[in-house]
Amino acid sequence: GSQGAPQLRAWRGRIGAELDAAVEFWERHSHDPEHGWDPKNYPPELPQIPQIWVYSRLYRTVPRFRRPELIQAARKAGEFLQSHARPQAGSTRAAFALSRDGRPERLQRSFYSEAFCALGLDELGRATGESKYRAWARGWALAVWGWARGSPMELGRPRFSGTPPQQALAQPMMVLKVGLQLLGDPRDPPGDPDPEAEAMAEWGARQLLLHLQRGDSVVLENVSPEGEELPGSLGRLMNPGHALEGAWLLLQFCQRRGDAELGARAVTALLEGPLKWGWDPQHGGLFYFLDADGHCPTQLEWSMKLWWPHLEAMVALLAAHLFQPQPSLISQFLQLAQFTFDKFRDPEHGEFFGYLNRDGSVALSIKGGPYKGCFHVARALLMCEEMLGAILEREGAAGEK
Amino acid sequence: GSQGAPQLRAWRGRIGAELDAAVEFWERHSHDPEHGWDPKNYPPELPQIPQIWVYSRLYRTVPRFRRPELIQAARKAGEFLQSHARPQAGSTRAAFALSRDGRPERLQRSFYSEAFCALGLDELGRATGESKYRAWARGWALAVWGWARGSPMELGRPRFSGTPPQQALAQPMMVLKVGLQLLGDPRDPPGDPDPEAEAMAEWGARQLLLHLQRGDSVVLENVSPEGEELPGSLGRLMNPGHALEGAWLLLQFCQRRGDAELGARAVTALLEGPLKWGWDPQHGGLFYFLDADGHCPTQLEWSMKLWWPHLEAMVALLAAHLFQPQPSLISQFLQLAQFTFDKFRDPEHGEFFGYLNRDGSVALSIKGGPYKGCFHVARALLMCEEMLGAILEREGAAGEK
Repeated sequence: GSQGAPQLRAWRGRIGAELDAAVEFWERHSHDPEHGWDPKNYPPELPQIPQIWVYSRLYRTVPRFRRPELIQAARKAGEFLQSHARPQAGSTRAAFALSRDGRPERLQRSFYSEAFCALGLDELGRATGESKYRAWARGWALAVWGWARGSPMELGRPRFSGTPPQQALAQPMMVLKVGLQLLGDPRDPPGDPDPEAEAMAEWGARQLLLHLQRGDSVVLENVSPEGEELPGSLGRLMNPGHALEGAWLLLQFCQRRGDAELGARAVTALLEGPLKWGWDPQHGGLFYFLDADGHCPTQLEWSMKLWWPHLEAMVALLAAHLFQPQPSLISQFLQLAQFTFDKFRDPEHGEFFGYLNRDGSVALSIKGGPYKGCFHVARALLMCEEMLGAILEREGAAGEK
Repeated sequence: GSQGAPQLRAWRGRIGAELDAAVEFWERHSHDPEHGWDPKNYPPELPQIPQIWVYSRLYRTVPRFRRPELIQAARKAGEFLQSHARPQAGSTRAAFALSRDGRPERLQRSFYSEAFCALGLDELGRATGESKYRAWARGWALAVWGWARGSPMELGRPRFSGTPPQQALAQPMMVLKVGLQLLGDPRDPPGDPDPEAEAMAEWGARQLLLHLQRGDSVVLENVSPEGEELPGSLGRLMNPGHALEGAWLLLQFCQRRGDAELGARAVTALLEGPLKWGWDPQHGGLFYFLDADGHCPTQLEWSMKLWWPHLEAMVALLAAHLFQPQPSLISQFLQLAQFTFDKFRDPEHGEFFGYLNRDGSVALSIKGGPYKGCFHVARALLMCEEMLGAILEREGAAGEK
């Protein structure tokens, strides 16, 4: 076995236990016996859509989560979503927030709600074996892809003569994510070829690479659709968390295509880079936003430490090590996992704090909010647990004490 | 003279010097020799519209600022604005951001840009004596008032069946502000009666009062248009800075109307209340957002300390003391002014920092950004200098050493 094996085994156990606790937390706090969700103090919003993905994926792939109540909740939520999310009948859009009884409350000027509908319903279809869910998912996915390539006008954001055409990193990343979801992963039974999903993933990967700039030394959040830098603070904005999430998605794409060269580029530019320039040398942790020229970002929350970039970094480090083993990736994972659990885990009430001040103190005590729900913590822990298992197995250390 | 007179005189001097420095700062950094504004690292945005108000008001009312270059800059900016702000010809809307050469870049789904056009151009008309500017201003003002009372659809924010009708505190406050601007202040030569502007101010004041809730013990940022609490975190949101800004605007309205009773209510509910429940007992300073039930707000920046609420508080305390003298208001002013200057003033580069972390450390070093420009600091310092003069004069202490 490798040198780090005992530590990796310990982390696999710790992460698995944390995943159990997180799922229990959301089962206890987020179900509405009447409508499928319990809004408590906060209204049902975007984060509850990807919860369908989490429950379905856990049910399908992790034996200890193969509980009927989990897939029942996901199914109920999926049906609720499909019948209530559209702001008007016939619309291809999904509301960002619904009232408790399922009336649309708010619509974003982006396509992320719709992308999460695609992700959640596709996974629900795989978990239940019911084809209608995957058909619904494909409908959302195609709408997303259309918006990503086409006019943003339909999303309610008119483009003015003074606005340079622009692409946000999250746009191709979401398309890549949805494409990969539709394609399924290696553990799925091989399905029919899906050229549409292949094209989505391909387009997403290619457009994502346009955000690697200045000889791959920075990852810019906003570029022109042709991959040129945009003027001003908008063009200089960086979001290390998005780069890190893009890293493991691109690695999944490269794994599929057997593209070792592109994978190596993803590791260098989207993982190692952001872990350097995105890291706070003073207090530790990843900044939320940075400016590529070292100016102060204009976002008030730029120096805060958010839970999800740290979890994405954990996932990306293990994905990179699985793609191309390298001891430094494991030591970085061990450090980052320790930092993340120390700072973000809430030992008192369970689950993870979402928002810390720069100095690491808790800024927001909420576990659920407009952009934080069950998704990021559970997905990352599930992926880390799986990947740690695969790494230990590969190194022949799975069974060692 | 009163007991606090020497301190008030010292503050009048300090504030006047700071105003001089602030204006010099913006004259040096924000003028574009080619187009009227110098965008430097940040594009020209909303904050530059109210700069027209600042320059014009200073020119008109403060002898030492009666410099031709100041009113020339305001005039150039006003003309630039009037010819370039509309997203399309014939539109009643104003863009939030323009490209350097004056093409519309971004439109907000609110009417604050248009309200600032009204304020700036009306003041420019008063300062120059040219009636066309005030006619332009009235056009913007009437559009604002229409949106405030009417459908928000035109602003690009469709209302869905699950969205309760709602009014944000800033909406009536802006209408009140614009109404009072159109009416002019006591130092203006009496003009023709202006029933339209009176009605705007009246409507703004009445609707503003709907945000005083729970027996005036809280000021809620969002209520129904009939003044009922809204469900969830949206309905519980409080913004002490907005309440404090509302306080002095309402006092100006009460002064005009001779309504001592409403004025007393404004002092209690909009000034003294927010200074209590909005104050951070641990580090001092006013929070940006709070939850009326003591829950954690969902805004990432809720615990940050922003420059403008502290400046609005200084203005409100002096306005309250002028309205109805009370020694505690002066001692509160002295404390707050000291806190504000200590924490926000940048002794090295001039002007004020806009955004501090909860503990008082500087979070953003920028002086100009999407929501921070010349307006808040200069307006507040100007008003404080004027009001300190009036207070000292009233107390017969103006000339004392």
